[in-house]
Amino acid sequence: MTREEKAAQLGSVNADELLDEDGELDRDAAEELLANGIGHLTRIGGEGSLPPTEAARVTNELQAILEETRLGVPAIPHEECLSGYMGPEGTTFPQSIGMASSWDPDLMRQVMERTRSEMAAIGTTHALSPVLDVARDLRWGRVEETFGEDPYLVAAMASAYVAGLQGPSIEDGISATLKHFAAHSASEGGKNRASVNVGPRELRETHLFPYEAAITTAGAESVMNAYHDIDGIPSASNEWLLTDLLRGELGFDGTVVSDYYSVDFLREEHGVSDSDRESAVMALEAGIDVELPATDCYEHLPEAIENGELSEATLDEAVRRVLRMKFRKGLVDDSTVDASVAADAFNTEAATELTERAARESIVLLKNENELLPLDDTDSLAVVGPKADDGQEMMGDYAYPAHYPEAEVSLDATTPLDAIRVHADGTEIAYEEGCTTSGPSTDGFDAAVEAAAGADVTLAFVGARSAVDFSDPDAEDVTNPALPTSGEGSDVTDLGLPGVQTELLERVHETGTPLVVVVVSGKPHSIEWVAEEVPAVVQAWLPGEEGGTGIADVLFGDYNPGGHLPVSLARSVGQLPVHYDRRPNSANKDHVYTESEPLYSFGHGLSYTEFEYDDFEVSTDTLGASGSVTASVTATNVGGRGGSDVVQLYAHAESPDQARPVQELVGFERVSLDAGESTRISFEIDATQLAYHDRDMNLRVHDGSYELRVGHSASDIAATGSVNINNSKVVPRTGRTYFTETEVRDT
Amino acid sequence: MTREEKAAQLGSVNADELLDEDGELDRDAAEELLANGIGHLTRIGGEGSLPPTEAARVTNELQAILEETRLGVPAIPHEECLSGYMGPEGTTFPQSIGMASSWDPDLMRQVMERTRSEMAAIGTTHALSPVLDVARDLRWGRVEETFGEDPYLVAAMASAYVAGLQGPSIEDGISATLKHFAAHSASEGGKNRASVNVGPRELRETHLFPYEAAITTAGAESVMNAYHDIDGIPSASNEWLLTDLLRGELGFDGTVVSDYYSVDFLREEHGVSDSDRESAVMALEAGIDVELPATDCYEHLPEAIENGELSEATLDEAVRRVLRMKFRKGLVDDSTVDASVAADAFNTEAATELTERAARESIVLLKNENELLPLDDTDSLAVVGPKADDGQEMMGDYAYPAHYPEAEVSLDATTPLDAIRVHADGTEIAYEEGCTTSGPSTDGFDAAVEAAAGADVTLAFVGARSAVDFSDPDAEDVTNPALPTSGEGSDVTDLGLPGVQTELLERVHETGTPLVVVVVSGKPHSIEWVAEEVPAVVQAWLPGEEGGTGIADVLFGDYNPGGHLPVSLARSVGQLPVHYDRRPNSANKDHVYTESEPLYSFGHGLSYTEFEYDDFEVSTDTLGASGSVTASVTATNVGGRGGSDVVQLYAHAESPDQARPVQELVGFERVSLDAGESTRISFEIDATQLAYHDRDMNLRVHDGSYELRVGHSASDIAATGSVNINNSKVVPRTGRTYFTETEVRDT
Repeated sequence: MTREEKAAQLGSVNADELLDEDGELDRDAAEELLANGIGHLTRIGGEGSLPPTEAARVTNELQAILEETRLGVPAIPHEECLSGYMGPEGTTFPQSIGMASSWDPDLMRQVMERTRSEMAAIGTTHALSPVLDVARDLRWGRVEETFGEDPYLVAAMASAYVAGLQGPSIEDGISATLKHFAAHSASEGGKNRASVNVGPRELRETHLFPYEAAITTAGAESVMNAYHDIDGIPSASNEWLLTDLLRGELGFDGTVVSDYYSVDFLREEHGVSDSDRESAVMALEAGIDVELPATDCYEHLPEAIENGELSEATLDEAVRRVLRMKFRKGLVDDSTVDASVAADAFNTEAATELTERAARESIVLLKNENELLPLDDTDSLAVVGPKADDGQEMMGDYAYPAHYPEAEVSLDATTPLDAIRVHADGTEIAYEEGCTTSGPSTDGFDAAVEAAAGADVTLAFVGARSAVDFSDPDAEDVTNPALPTSGEGSDVTDLGLPGVQTELLERVHETGTPLVVVVVSGKPHSIEWVAEEVPAVVQAWLPGEEGGTGIADVLFGDYNPGGHLPVSLARSVGQLPVHYDRRPNSANKDHVYTESEPLYSFGHGLSYTEFEYDDFEVSTDTLGASGSVTASVTATNVGGRGGSDVVQLYAHAESPDQARPVQELVGFERVSLDAGESTRISFEIDATQLAYHDRDMNLRVHDGSYELRVGHSASDIAATGSVNINNSKVVPRTGRTYFTETEVRDT
Repeated sequence: MTREEKAAQLGSVNADELLDEDGELDRDAAEELLANGIGHLTRIGGEGSLPPTEAARVTNELQAILEETRLGVPAIPHEECLSGYMGPEGTTFPQSIGMASSWDPDLMRQVMERTRSEMAAIGTTHALSPVLDVARDLRWGRVEETFGEDPYLVAAMASAYVAGLQGPSIEDGISATLKHFAAHSASEGGKNRASVNVGPRELRETHLFPYEAAITTAGAESVMNAYHDIDGIPSASNEWLLTDLLRGELGFDGTVVSDYYSVDFLREEHGVSDSDRESAVMALEAGIDVELPATDCYEHLPEAIENGELSEATLDEAVRRVLRMKFRKGLVDDSTVDASVAADAFNTEAATELTERAARESIVLLKNENELLPLDDTDSLAVVGPKADDGQEMMGDYAYPAHYPEAEVSLDATTPLDAIRVHADGTEIAYEEGCTTSGPSTDGFDAAVEAAAGADVTLAFVGARSAVDFSDPDAEDVTNPALPTSGEGSDVTDLGLPGVQTELLERVHETGTPLVVVVVSGKPHSIEWVAEEVPAVVQAWLPGEEGGTGIADVLFGDYNPGGHLPVSLARSVGQLPVHYDRRPNSANKDHVYTESEPLYSFGHGLSYTEFEYDDFEVSTDTLGASGSVTASVTATNVGGRGGSDVVQLYAHAESPDQARPVQELVGFERVSLDAGESTRISFEIDATQLAYHDRDMNLRVHDGSYELRVGHSASDIAATGSVNINNSKVVPRTGRTYFTETEVRDT
C-alpha cells in the first residue's frame, strides 16, 4: 500500500461531499475522493437524509466505486443511532436517560436489535454509540444521552446496548462505539468539551468501569475518544489513555475512532498543535486509528512520515487494525446489501410496539398524592403546556426527527394530546399550549388558566427542548430564545424548567383544579416547587416516537408505571453534585438552608400498587476473596393491581482504609408481580465485585465487613445484612466479575 | 522519656479544660492534665477569652507547672490569627480576601508584624494561619479566608503573611501554620470537608504552588492537614501527601499539626477507622506530629505500641520534631513573658492606623458611572441596609469580635454609619436598616424607600454574615434564619445577596435617587442586577475594626480606591467555576444564555483617576532555560488626581504539548502615582517561573513561545509581547524562582 492508501484507510468522507443537492450520488466527486480507498463513509443515510432504499443504493454504489480502486478495499459505513437509527424512517426510541429509567437491560438489547436490523438493511456496519458517560454534572446538555449517574447501571445498560447492536455474529452486527472515552461527563461547569478534573481512583471506579464491562462482557468493537482534556492532556493526544490503558490494561482490540473534529480541535480548541499535520501525528501516536468525520488532519500523515515526524510502523499498526475490522465484519467478502428490500426493515409493526413498550417502561411516577393517578373517568380534562402536542419535542438529541423538522412528514409520532384524545374518548378536552418551551411570553396563560378552571383535572406537559433545529438560521446565535436547553452544546446554568413554564404551572395550579405535571425532558430538572405543591408528577423523559401513547397509557392506568430514576434530582443547580454514591463527608453534609438529600433520589419510582420486601438473607457470614455471596429477598405486591418493581441491591464497605461511597449499586432486577403475588429474588455477588483500588491503584478485594442493603431507592433501604471478606487479594484488571447473577423464583 | 511523656508531646490541652468558669486557672486540673508534659496549649487567650494581661499570666503559670514536671519541657501555646489575633483586645484587620484585594504583600507583612507583637506579648509562639487554599468554588464558606483564586497571588500574600508573623528571628517570631494541606478549596459542592477531585497536575500547579513558595521562600514553620479526602484518601491519613510530598519533595522540616478534630474524624466522618487508637496510628504514620485541639486519639499511642500496631521509631520521630521546634523557638530557655507589659502591645495607635490603612487599600471600586463617586457635597444622604451600622458584621470568620458579641464592649469598631457621620458633618443623614442580613421580613422597606426618596444620594450597605455567633443557642440549627451564609461550615447553594437585600436595593433604586451599593461581605456574590442597574458599586469585603472609616474615606474621596479583585465574580452559581486561569476549552465556552465571561474579572478594580500603559517591552526574544527576561511598561496616571494602580503581568504558553490556562499571573506591582505622573515598572521573570509539569509530572521548562501580557485585569490586557525558550529542562522541585523581581523607576 502506498502511504496515501494507508492514510485513506484512517479517514472518512462526509456524506455531503458525495451527494449532490438532490441527494444523488455525485459520481465524479466520489471517484476522486475515494481514489485511494477510504476507511469509513460518514452518515450516508443520516447526514445525506436518504430514505432507506436510497441510502442502501448509494452505499452500494460507493462500495462499488471502492471495489474499482487499486486495492479494492470496501469502506465501513457508519451512522449515529443513540436512540435508534438517526436517519429518515429510523425508529426513534426513548432517549438513553429514559431507557436507563426502565432498569431493563433486556429491553435495551431488544431495542438495539431492532435498530441493528434497520441499519444493516441500508448497508451500515458501524454505529457511533452508546454513550457510557456517567452523569455527574446535571448542567451538561448531554446528560440526556447517558444512562444516568451510576457506573453499575450505566455498565449494565451499555453492555446490553452493545449486545443488541452487535448481535450474535460479528459479520451481521453493527459495531458499537463506546464513547466518550473517558470521563466526558465530569467537565468544568458542565460545559461540553471543557476540562475534566478527576483523580485516578475516581477515573477508574466511576468513569472507566462501564467501558471495562462493555469491552470485557460484550466485546465492544470500537471506542471513541472524548473532546476534553483531563488534567491538561486532551484525550485525542492522550497515549496513556487511548493505548496504555485502553489496549494494554483493558484489553481492547477494536478500532479507536475520533469524535467528530476532535483531531482538528487539538489545534483549534486546545492550542496544543500548530498545524493539522502536527495534530494528526499527535492523535495517531496517542492511539486514534480513524479520524472522523472527514480526513482533515490525517491526510497529512504521508507528509509527516516524509518529514521524519512519524514512523511508518505507527501508521501501519492503525491501518492493520482498520483492515482487520473490515475482514472481521465480512465487508471484504461482501460490502453490499439488497437495496430492494432495505425499506422492509423500517416502519414495522414490531418496531412500533417495541418503542411504545420502551416508552411505557421508561416513565417514572415521582409523586402521586391521594391516588390522583391513574385518572378516573372524568367529564373534562384540560391539557396545557408546550410539550403536550409537539411530536418533535418528544425526541432527544441525536434523534433524526428532532433535528430535521421536515422529517415530521414521514413520522407518525404520537403526541400526548393525540393519545389522550384516543384514551379519553367522550371526555371534553380543552387544550391550551399556555407558553412555548423557552420563550418569555405569558400571553397564553389566561387561556390555559381558563381551560384549567373549567376542567375536572389539568394535565400539564412541560420540559426542555433538546437538539438544535438545523434548519433554523439562528441556530448558532447564543441569545436565540428558541435554542434548546438540553442536548449537545446546550449546557445550562439553571436546572429549572426553561422560560415561563413554572409560572404557567403556578397559574393553573391556583385554579384549584387537581393538577398532574408530566415532565417531558431529557434534563433532570430541579422542580422543587412542583414536587412540593403539585399532587401528581410524572417524569416521562424524551419518550420517542410513541411517547405520547406511553404517557397516556400511564396516565389512564392502561400501564402501571415502573420506571425508576437513573439519576438523583437536585433541589437547585447550587446543590450539585447530588449523585447518591458520594463519600460520607460529601453525601451527608448540608449547605446552609439546603439539606443534603436530593429532591428525588436515585432509584426512586412509584407505582399504582405497592411492593414490600421481606426475609432478606445473606447466604454466608464470611467470604474468601474468590467466593461469592447470595443475598435474597422476597418481594410482594401488597397493593390491589399488577405492576412492576425494581429491586435494588447496594453495598457499603465498613471501616475500609480509605473513604468509600456511602453505598454503591451492585445489583438490580425489574420484576412484574400481580396483585398479592410474591417472588424470591437472589443476587449472587462475586467477591471481586466488591473490589476497589488500593493506594497503589491496584484493584484489590479488601478484607473487612461489607453491608448489603436491599431497597426501593438509594434513600429507601428496606433491609440490611453483612458479609466479611477475609482473604484480601489483587484482582487482575479484567479478571473480575462485572454483573451480579440474579435469579427470580416463584414463592 | 516514657511513652506517655512522648505521646503528651504530640498533643494539646484545650483552654476550657484548664480554666474555671471565671477564667481563672484551675491549678488542680492543670497539674493533672500536664503531668506528663504537653506539646501545645490550645488558645488560652482566645478560647479562654482572657484579656492580654490575664492571658499572659495564665500562660506563664501553665509553663511554670510544666517546668515542674519530670522533664520540665515547656508547651507551645498556639492561637488563631487569620485576620489578626483572635482574642480579647486583638486588632482585627480586613479578612484575607480583602487583604488580597490590596495586592500589597508589604502591607500584609506589616499587618502580621503587628499581630506578632500582640501574640508574642501574651506568650503565644504558634499561630494556626495563614490559609493558602486557592478559591475554586465560591459556594464554599471559607472563600473569605483565602487570598483568592490565583496561585501566584495567594503565594505572594501568604509568603508575606508568614514573613511578618514569623519575623526576623525564629526565637521572637510566631510560627505560621500553612493550611489546609492541601486543596481544601476544591471540595464537592463547595461543602466544607467534602471530597476533593483533582488531577495530579492541578493539585501541584494550582493547590501546592503557594505551599511550595511559602515553605521555600518564607520558611514556614508549620503545616496543618486538611479535613477532606482527595480521591478517597483523607488528608489526615495520607502519608504520600504529608510525608513523601511535603517533607520529601517540598523539603519541609517543621511540624505538621492536625486540623482540629481531623484525627477523630478519620473514624467519625470518613469511617476509615474503628477506634480512636486506630485513627491515631493512621494519622501519626501519615505524618501528623501534633493532634489538635486536644489529645483525644494520640493518648492511645502508647497502647498502640504495646499492641504492636505502631513502631516506637515512628513515635520518636514526631516527638523529635516537636522538641526540636521547642528548642528552636527558645522555649526551652525561657517560656514566659512579662505579663505586666502584655497589655502595652494592644490597642495601640499604630495598630489603629494600620488596620485603617489596610481597610482603605482592600476596597475595590467595581463600577462608577458618571463619576457618582466620590460624593460631592450633598445636602442629604440616605444610608440604608443591614451592613451600615453593625460593627460585628464588618469582621470575618475567625475574628474574635465576630464570634463573641460581648467583645463589642471592648471594641472601638467604627461602622460605616459612624464614619459617614464624621465625614458628612452638616449633611442631613437619614438612616434606615431596611431589612436584616438574611431574614425574610420586608417591614423596613417603606421607611428605607422614604429615606432614599428624600435624599440626594442613597448609600446602601449589603452583604452576608460571616461567623456563627457562639452565644446563639440556635447556632447549630440549619434552618435558623440568623445563620451566617459565609465562613466555615456556612456553604451556600446560591451566590446572591442573602435574604431580601436585593429586593431592598430594587426598591430604593426605584426612587430615582442616585444609588451607591457597598457590598460588605466575605462572599464574592453574584450581583448581576446590581452590576447592571446601579451606577456605583463598591466591594468592601470584611474590612475589619476600622472598616467603616476606610469605606467612608473611599466614598468621600479622602482615599482614592486602588484595590483589585483577587477573585472573579460569577454571574450566578450555575456559572461556576469562573476563575480566569482555566484552559481555553473551559474559559472560552458559553452556557446557553450565559456568556463565559464572569460578571467582574480577576484583577478588576477602578479608581477615581485613570491609568494608561505604554511602551511595553520584552528584553529578549529568546531565553535559555536558566535565564530571565524583563518585561517593562510605563504606567501613567492620566487623570486628575493621585491614586494607586495594580499593574498585572500575565503569561500564556503558545502551542504547548498540553492544554494550558489561557493565561496565568506571573507578576504584579501596586504603584501610587500623582496626577500626570509616570513610572517605569520592570518585571524580571526567570525561565523557571514558566515551567509546568510534563506528562511524567516532572516540572519542566518547556521549549516554545510564551506571550507576556500587561493588563489592568485578566480581561483588560493593554499590551503583549513574546519570548521564546529554546532549552527545555527539568527543574528541581524547589529549585525554581517563585516570584518575579519588580523594579519601579521614575521616568
